[in-house]
Amino acid sequence: MQSTILNRRDIDFLLYEWLDVESLTSRERYQDHSRETFSAVLDTAEQIATDLFATHNKLSDANEPHFDGERVAIVPEVKTALDAFCAAGFMAAGHDYEYEGMQLPYLVTKAAGAWFTAANVATSAYTFLTMGNANTLLKTATPRQVERFVRPQLAGRFFGTMCLSEPQAGSSLSDITTRAEPDPVEGPEGERQYRLRGNKMWISAGEHELSENIVHLVLAKIPGPDGKLIPGVKGISLFIVPKYLVGEDGAIGERNDIALAGLNHKMGNRGTTNCLLNFGEGKFTPSGKAGAIGYLVGEPHKGLANMFHMMNEARIGVGLGATVLGVTGYLHALDYARNRPQGRHPAEKDPAKPQVPIIEHTDVRRMLLAQKAYTEGALALIMYCARLVDEQRTGASPEAQARAGMLLDFLTPIAKSWPSQWCTEANSLAIQVHGGYGYTREYNVEQFYRDNRLNPIHEGTHGIHGLDLLGRKVSIQQGALFKAVSEEVAATVAKARAADASDLTAHAGQLEALWARIGQVTATLYAAGDMNKTLANASLYLEAVGHVVIAWMWLEQALVAARHQDDDFYRGKLQACRYFFNWELPKSAQQLDLLETIDTTTLDMRDAWF
Amino acid sequence: MQSTILNRRDIDFLLYEWLDVESLTSRERYQDHSRETFSAVLDTAEQIATDLFATHNKLSDANEPHFDGERVAIVPEVKTALDAFCAAGFMAAGHDYEYEGMQLPYLVTKAAGAWFTAANVATSAYTFLTMGNANTLLKTATPRQVERFVRPQLAGRFFGTMCLSEPQAGSSLSDITTRAEPDPVEGPEGERQYRLRGNKMWISAGEHELSENIVHLVLAKIPGPDGKLIPGVKGISLFIVPKYLVGEDGAIGERNDIALAGLNHKMGNRGTTNCLLNFGEGKFTPSGKAGAIGYLVGEPHKGLANMFHMMNEARIGVGLGATVLGVTGYLHALDYARNRPQGRHPAEKDPAKPQVPIIEHTDVRRMLLAQKAYTEGALALIMYCARLVDEQRTGASPEAQARAGMLLDFLTPIAKSWPSQWCTEANSLAIQVHGGYGYTREYNVEQFYRDNRLNPIHEGTHGIHGLDLLGRKVSIQQGALFKAVSEEVAATVAKARAADASDLTAHAGQLEALWARIGQVTATLYAAGDMNKTLANASLYLEAVGHVVIAWMWLEQALVAARHQDDDFYRGKLQACRYFFNWELPKSAQQLDLLETIDTTTLDMRDAWF
Repeated sequence: MQSTILNRRDIDFLLYEWLDVESLTSRERYQDHSRETFSAVLDTAEQIATDLFATHNKLSDANEPHFDGERVAIVPEVKTALDAFCAAGFMAAGHDYEYEGMQLPYLVTKAAGAWFTAANVATSAYTFLTMGNANTLLKTATPRQVERFVRPQLAGRFFGTMCLSEPQAGSSLSDITTRAEPDPVEGPEGERQYRLRGNKMWISAGEHELSENIVHLVLAKIPGPDGKLIPGVKGISLFIVPKYLVGEDGAIGERNDIALAGLNHKMGNRGTTNCLLNFGEGKFTPSGKAGAIGYLVGEPHKGLANMFHMMNEARIGVGLGATVLGVTGYLHALDYARNRPQGRHPAEKDPAKPQVPIIEHTDVRRMLLAQKAYTEGALALIMYCARLVDEQRTGASPEAQARAGMLLDFLTPIAKSWPSQWCTEANSLAIQVHGGYGYTREYNVEQFYRDNRLNPIHEGTHGIHGLDLLGRKVSIQQGALFKAVSEEVAATVAKARAADASDLTAHAGQLEALWARIGQVTATLYAAGDMNKTLANASLYLEAVGHVVIAWMWLEQALVAARHQDDDFYRGKLQACRYFFNWELPKSAQQLDLLETIDTTTLDMRDAWF
Repeated sequence: MQSTILNRRDIDFLLYEWLDVESLTSRERYQDHSRETFSAVLDTAEQIATDLFATHNKLSDANEPHFDGERVAIVPEVKTALDAFCAAGFMAAGHDYEYEGMQLPYLVTKAAGAWFTAANVATSAYTFLTMGNANTLLKTATPRQVERFVRPQLAGRFFGTMCLSEPQAGSSLSDITTRAEPDPVEGPEGERQYRLRGNKMWISAGEHELSENIVHLVLAKIPGPDGKLIPGVKGISLFIVPKYLVGEDGAIGERNDIALAGLNHKMGNRGTTNCLLNFGEGKFTPSGKAGAIGYLVGEPHKGLANMFHMMNEARIGVGLGATVLGVTGYLHALDYARNRPQGRHPAEKDPAKPQVPIIEHTDVRRMLLAQKAYTEGALALIMYCARLVDEQRTGASPEAQARAGMLLDFLTPIAKSWPSQWCTEANSLAIQVHGGYGYTREYNVEQFYRDNRLNPIHEGTHGIHGLDLLGRKVSIQQGALFKAVSEEVAATVAKARAADASDLTAHAGQLEALWARIGQVTATLYAAGDMNKTLANASLYLEAVGHVVIAWMWLEQALVAARHQDDDFYRGKLQACRYFFNWELPKSAQQLDLLETIDTTTLDMRDAWF
């Protein structure tokens, strides 16, 4: 039976038929691998996700973590699933052999991870936070910090968090007020030891007993000589603040001064604890006094740059999570539509005839096709980005690596935001296909819709990514990032023209014209002479460019599919591509028209007029 | 302090400044009324909604009705609120003096009802179902049925339901299988008494102890002479099936044979019980034997036509519910945006400066302005429809009444569907304005978003209304309905041209051109020569026409506002109108372009290709 978690056929298509992941095995880092090892990893991921993650997705949603004032209780199925994930080696799947990793390509680790996220986004969040934490430390921490805090994370003994936001500082990180006072000690951390005091908000996985220890990565400010915090992002440093101190032998020691002030109760993603944490308020007294002990990571005042190593990865991770929630919703809706009889064809006038499966109704097919177009388009973009990460890390030349990095930087805000918007829309359509049943918790799709609604908010809101794309990514390095993407789009257009298929030729023309229009509109916006005007409609810009990027991804897929027209799978790809170009892409044209007018409706609006 | 439930200023604007509700007081039915009585009713509604409905909205969401196998437990605040609603006379607010009603215009009753729905959609559902039930019976029931079942509902002693769907028959009512066998008795109901057997699904308010009795209005089929059910809608009849039989003196009698098989657990609207009911399975034995006793309403086999009296009213009610959930979400977001400091203006480079309220950020204003445009546009349409109901009932001539009926018939699918889609989108934007806080149950907006997602499903799905508009409403009576609406739009365009305001003149041109285009596209679709092609993209048609209708509503509002340009309230109206015409209306143009191609992408899609 076809899984309703993910479509393995589609993943294989993306990995083997389109992105040619096998070619990576010729590179030194991946030389022990083959299609067989990749497939074995994907098989294992599917198996564990199916048996242990999907099975408690509704359970942990209905029984969210509970704080009794001392401990956080979580349904035991969560720990069972995470233990199996770690035991199978997924936490270090992409890491060096030196860290007991498997040295799998990033692309394969993302495809494997997709199974866990699609099956249970709340439980898998613990793993992604831990991997992100470990990866950040691997870039910037001392060898000793790596031994004490990274190895146990990659082994699945410790889990990790990222502590950025504070109640008064969400999107505006420069306004954090957590203080880190020097607390130098004898011993290996020496001058790196600090005492932290402050409150951190929205900390996913911030408290639980799923692992032996929790490694918090905390942004805090070291006061200046006058004892005051330095305003702005320049004052921010990065610290390791473990829930329990770790002895020289790696043993768990004293409880650090971190207290859970409360859990947030979310609409979705309920299985992941989300916490307000108080650091250094004296609930515990490590080494005999109040104050959370933290260890400086990297240079002082470089905290934000260090943390951003993690942020870009996390953003693609959010995009992947949004995407696969969309995919699983689509597969559930497809399964329902094939099995639910209701109504008859418009031409059938005999009410005594049996009802037909609802997939026979054109409007139901529209909703399924839209879901397919959104979710498989998004998945293609995420996998394309993951492939770029491999290229950035192991490309044949420094130039190839740098170019992959540029493409990735440009595409990251889109890879985060587009799936967050459109795969949540896909989940809404999955509900609609189910009718009243879809609106009930007796079925699965309403949870996907609730879970997915988080994604346009965290890891930078939709609006923040609009500003990132229009205010930064298109213009930095004299437009080199935009130019690099433009060249790739042009290459796809050329391939489509050469393919000698009338549909693809037409699509190539549409894509080429719209991409050129993005360039013109961007120039017009930058010529506005007032950055307030240039950036006023940045969110709309993000959406317009996003749709064109997904059209590009569809044309890429169609180019592969067009070589096999007799097969249902490829016919489906071509039809979804046609849907995207006919139904969706024109939305971008309309948005670009509006952007070109440098419309000031929202800029002119006044508080008092609301 | 400005209420976050609804904006009374806007309601007064719609009622008094635009729709001139005061002019109705010159009609005989409303002659006892005045602006003072209308305002007193609205004041009372606001007060009760604020004090008793809004106050338990989160409570009943978090503590949904619970069935222990015998009884349904509901938090007591629900009954307290409903009792106050009934005691204040709202159940019969629009009804004749003869029924202890207030004979208020329908428009005023909808404006008053809006307060309860916005404050607590789940609790107010009990009242709307009861009023719809009573109104259906008033049209078709015998005087004795009215005495026994309508009067107690209008007095708030009995509550009502509508029982249409069955597990195998949701959108396809022709497939219901509930049987009604004649069970003639001596006494007043005589030949009208039947015994019903079958299962009814999705019955809101189907079981509770909030009222002395529950009056179920049930669709069922009377078997033919061969004992078989007649296929199709022609076999359907309408029955009153009370939870408890009612004695000749009106006293509550025996329990009827209706059993609660289970409650549905919904994503939102959790405070309203939603039931699977088993009729006639023998759990109870009224008059000594199994079978639910029901009384035929109106003629046999005319059940669907009789029920549809209720459906049109219910559809406008759904549109109103969707709208005011959007409005209250908007008002919550506005309040948050004015009070939440975060970040600084783009030009402010000094991070030591205080953070600004987020309403200062253009992108936040965009999200608020979109919410204002969607929700106030939708509210205008609903109030316009309510005004048409008054015209249909009390218009100066039969021609005026008939014309109002035609406008109403055309607009009903839009009044139901457009707010369901776009005010849910407004609720999503309300979450986004709140950031992470909006995603938590500690704030209010996530509930509005969950509650509102029901509305595109019930009372006819989005797809059903698309078929109704394109397949029926535009073409019946030789296009007379479409012609009537076209004349009204043209009148608005003419007024806007005469207003001598450049913005409005431009908007008039846009509206006129798009309305003409709807006419052309409709003709093209009907010329397709194949109803499968004509109707394939009916949902898109519904959305395209809906946006143009809302633009018309905005131009109407702007015409009033343009007379008072110095006032903040009117400036806001004009700016929201500008937003709708610049940002939203072009979406229709793009959709009409697609419709004109008679695109067959969804029609051509095959099951096997998914």
